[in-house]
Amino acid sequence: MALSPVISRLIEALRCLPGVGPKSAQRMAFHLLQRNREAARELARVIEEAVAAVGRCESCRTLSEGALCPVCASPRRDPLILCVVETPADMAAIDASTGYRGMFFVLMGHLSPLDGIGPAELGLDQFERRLDGGGIAEVILATSATVEGEATAHYLAEMVRERGIRATRIAQGVPMGGELEFVDGGTLARAIAARRDAS
Amino acid sequence: MALSPVISRLIEALRCLPGVGPKSAQRMAFHLLQRNREAARELARVIEEAVAAVGRCESCRTLSEGALCPVCASPRRDPLILCVVETPADMAAIDASTGYRGMFFVLMGHLSPLDGIGPAELGLDQFERRLDGGGIAEVILATSATVEGEATAHYLAEMVRERGIRATRIAQGVPMGGELEFVDGGTLARAIAARRDAS
Repeated sequence: MALSPVISRLIEALRCLPGVGPKSAQRMAFHLLQRNREAARELARVIEEAVAAVGRCESCRTLSEGALCPVCASPRRDPLILCVVETPADMAAIDASTGYRGMFFVLMGHLSPLDGIGPAELGLDQFERRLDGGGIAEVILATSATVEGEATAHYLAEMVRERGIRATRIAQGVPMGGELEFVDGGTLARAIAARRDAS
Repeated sequence: MALSPVISRLIEALRCLPGVGPKSAQRMAFHLLQRNREAARELARVIEEAVAAVGRCESCRTLSEGALCPVCASPRRDPLILCVVETPADMAAIDASTGYRGMFFVLMGHLSPLDGIGPAELGLDQFERRLDGGGIAEVILATSATVEGEATAHYLAEMVRERGIRATRIAQGVPMGGELEFVDGGTLARAIAARRDAS
């Protein structure tokens, strides 16, 4: 083997990143060592710091440095609406690209009994306490449009409606810019079934 | 913004990796924090260690932990042949997938006068000393098949031949598994020009 042991270990360690195979890991390792040592040091520092500092938001369960995440801590958000998402990435995407300014609840996954992920793992006890605490008029179910996401949304909708709170599901249909010819059949069928009066 | 400051900084820091844009950086950051904190800590540790420990091999200039890289330190390599490559990655690729068991010399780039990369930056003084030291019968020029790589190979070939040493260039032609229909014209032209007697 032509590589020093610590370089091999660096390549191996970089493979913990999602989507990084042996080839990209090697490319990243050489890049860090050949051209960008200061950035490499900074990356190591920030990873350490983030792993040590980041926990869960007490209110919405997203990844957060403080006890409350920036959204839950903000006085400008509308506390009447609660949007339930599967991951912190989904929360960031909705916050960044929609006009939504209500609160969030992050499941950190979806119901998946075969993988041992049930209501307790998704913090649904905390979700119930939040609903029972009052002051929530609508819960938007923004789980993925997958089988598991749909099942999770269905389960949550029951919990929400039982308490006399409005439960809504994000719209499904043809994506923006979607040419019908290239949209899959399932999506098309749903878009026809959920058609609305033309505006 | 829905993200804690340290998470934003982690996303930013991950973008120093080659081929990592804002979306992948975010995905990597969430992956490290949600699922893989032990691997994240290990990654930080190994980056720090590699950046501190890895320098250049005194003999071949590749990235190395020790004064000599594993190849230069090995008593089993053939000291008669020297293979010149542009990067440590090229050296690793040739070592891993060919039967080549000679020595290497790593330029860490190619001649590129417009970018201020001349003979000194590529360690050609060290290369000359190595040639003059004697004991080398052949120099394989394994720089890339690009304009800069060709120019560099040409320059090095002169240096090598001046000293009465054999200079060879790696073969160029149709790659393995390459269907002729999809091979570019330049490669095809070269493959025809460099044709050999059929075996």
